[in-house]
Amino acid sequence: MDQTASPRPAASRPAFANWLGETNDITRMFLAAGRIQGLINLAGGLPDPAVYPVAELAAIAEEAVSSHPTDSLNYAPIEGLPELRDLIAERFSDERVRLGRENVLIVSGGMQGLDLVGKALLDDGGLIAAQAPTYVGALDAWRPRNPTFRPFDLEHPEFDAVDALQDAQFAYTVPNFSNPSGRLVGARVRQALVDAANQSGVWLVEDDPYGALQYDGAPQPRMLSLSGSAEGDALYRGPVVYFGSMSKSLAPGLRVGWVIAAPEMIEAMTMAKQGSDICASGLSQRMALNALETGLVDRLQPEIAAHYRERRDALVAAMEAHLTEWFDWESPAGGMFVWAVSRDPLLDTNALLPAMLDAGVCVAPGSVFDPVGKDRRAFRINFTLNPPEKLTEGIRRLAGVMRRRDEHSA
Amino acid sequence: MDQTASPRPAASRPAFANWLGETNDITRMFLAAGRIQGLINLAGGLPDPAVYPVAELAAIAEEAVSSHPTDSLNYAPIEGLPELRDLIAERFSDERVRLGRENVLIVSGGMQGLDLVGKALLDDGGLIAAQAPTYVGALDAWRPRNPTFRPFDLEHPEFDAVDALQDAQFAYTVPNFSNPSGRLVGARVRQALVDAANQSGVWLVEDDPYGALQYDGAPQPRMLSLSGSAEGDALYRGPVVYFGSMSKSLAPGLRVGWVIAAPEMIEAMTMAKQGSDICASGLSQRMALNALETGLVDRLQPEIAAHYRERRDALVAAMEAHLTEWFDWESPAGGMFVWAVSRDPLLDTNALLPAMLDAGVCVAPGSVFDPVGKDRRAFRINFTLNPPEKLTEGIRRLAGVMRRRDEHSA
Repeated sequence: MDQTASPRPAASRPAFANWLGETNDITRMFLAAGRIQGLINLAGGLPDPAVYPVAELAAIAEEAVSSHPTDSLNYAPIEGLPELRDLIAERFSDERVRLGRENVLIVSGGMQGLDLVGKALLDDGGLIAAQAPTYVGALDAWRPRNPTFRPFDLEHPEFDAVDALQDAQFAYTVPNFSNPSGRLVGARVRQALVDAANQSGVWLVEDDPYGALQYDGAPQPRMLSLSGSAEGDALYRGPVVYFGSMSKSLAPGLRVGWVIAAPEMIEAMTMAKQGSDICASGLSQRMALNALETGLVDRLQPEIAAHYRERRDALVAAMEAHLTEWFDWESPAGGMFVWAVSRDPLLDTNALLPAMLDAGVCVAPGSVFDPVGKDRRAFRINFTLNPPEKLTEGIRRLAGVMRRRDEHSA
Repeated sequence: MDQTASPRPAASRPAFANWLGETNDITRMFLAAGRIQGLINLAGGLPDPAVYPVAELAAIAEEAVSSHPTDSLNYAPIEGLPELRDLIAERFSDERVRLGRENVLIVSGGMQGLDLVGKALLDDGGLIAAQAPTYVGALDAWRPRNPTFRPFDLEHPEFDAVDALQDAQFAYTVPNFSNPSGRLVGARVRQALVDAANQSGVWLVEDDPYGALQYDGAPQPRMLSLSGSAEGDALYRGPVVYFGSMSKSLAPGLRVGWVIAAPEMIEAMTMAKQGSDICASGLSQRMALNALETGLVDRLQPEIAAHYRERRDALVAAMEAHLTEWFDWESPAGGMFVWAVSRDPLLDTNALLPAMLDAGVCVAPGSVFDPVGKDRRAFRINFTLNPPEKLTEGIRRLAGVMRRRDEHSA
């Protein structure tokens, strides 16, 4: 054995990039929870695999490869298959927004849109204005660029959209059933954000993974649409950068999403995509195109909504039966989550995690949705993955943890 | 029409990130060439779609969804499907390197490995030691982190691996049939790089997209293998970060690749992958697993090699017939490219591009493979995409351009 070929201890290696030093223990504890036997996991944000149309997708996959082998098996254009870009442009055009292929970039799932907009707009340390609380995945996507976050609260009575956006590289929002808060942003606030974006020029990211998961009431207008000029035949050039995906309306395993934006932003994000993964899977793009063209996605939508509406109702009923003493929440009109805020401002939801895991239940502590990890008054509770009886049992266990805590501190 | 909702001119938007200002015109001209009618494009790096096993992959796609719906359609684990990680670990283990699942990360194609190693190791402006000339896709992947490049020439008689690696965050190499040079790095230089990596601790990236495309002679040992300690049952902890992919051995449209490295590097790159696209397509991973397990990939390998060997021979024969007056080259023992270096040190291959496009042929100018865009003495010529008669005609056109240039300057 040659001595020189023997690996040296890891300590002598170059340091990892700075952002990797910032992992918080809470995130690790909560990711590790997935492995605990018998745990009722209400912490994630996963769909129920029972909603995936398996037989249809098996046939669509076969057909995609055999009828469109080059599209499916070769490198796709960086921007995505032209037919899929055209179809997305058509589906999102309306009386105010005229979209063409140049307005659409196909991405490898919605998360990639977040990575690419960061690469396109952020130099090291750049400023992001972000709706608070903020989707943890967006925080993860931007951490490698060491951004500065300035949160804004859309529900604050004195919310000022112009102040919120000022001097940022972009503003980040999830207006439909926000992750984690579940809130639906109303038309007035949407218009105020769009007006502020028009006034300041600041890019306004409208991240919309949950728009298809609406259980009650009518949809609110997209900010993409509100920002359209409706002037003649010109293609959209407004400030909104809209993200959609097939992950909630068909299946996340395909990793297909899209970005709709002004052509200059699509070009910049295309440059970033070229150096990120060259292109999204051609097979997945062909399958998405088929599922949209044949109406499969539109046929599934009411079934999926009914399935999750029942679960939302079961969760909220269990919370009303067991948690009102400690938490406040609003029943969300869509999405995947209920955001439960402690009535006791001194409660630290991070500190409750070990007792929760001992009791066999896990929910997501609010701190992971705060760029600085300080907001500890809330839990995010997922209702899409588990059936009603498990949701109810999970909430019973959570109530048990709260009761024992009260007894202990009494 | 509300005036405030009207989009303002793009000029008022926040600036794009700095790295986007550095696009060079040559890259744009050469990407645009793809659209010229009748052009013989020898500039790209694309496989011939005729080698994709369409019928087999159509059946495999159907089977993946119907027999493994959750793996195929749900989010996969960030690190990849455990069975695929295990299979890659097994295929790359040998008497010197013992690999386990912890040593393997499944990525969305080889390009993503480059993005992730950059995110894991580079703070803004970090130093990369890179084999010159350098794969343009790697340069693209790292540009958003504004790295400093220090090139090294493995063929220089006084090449010193310790000097080459010193103080870098990582060293980047393509030892098998390098893109663009087509060169196969010999065992002695591989060992020197591994020894230098062991001595300095610097991570040594072994990018190996072309290993399966060998047309003559025996494979050289992987640096991954040379860096193994072969000590007992311990998993690999050495300095090599190895990238492989299914893009050349099965089909690039699946976007499946893998990284093999020390567990600490796999963990860091997994953190980066989580914020990049969450996971690679589950369907593609299931298909790759099937194609590897059933032996399809291994059965295809000699057929693909024979197909491309014939094309390489046709290209080199045409070059010998028409280009010896102006260029020197080595016939590559594998890969996709011949690197033709001008005999006249004053030739500027960038300057020849317009005349080439007029003559109906395109090859890649050497400048795009130089981090600073200065090396203009070479062309990269692809032989995988076009059939022998087109390769020959393309080289005839290129010779015509050179002849007219000589006449013009005479």
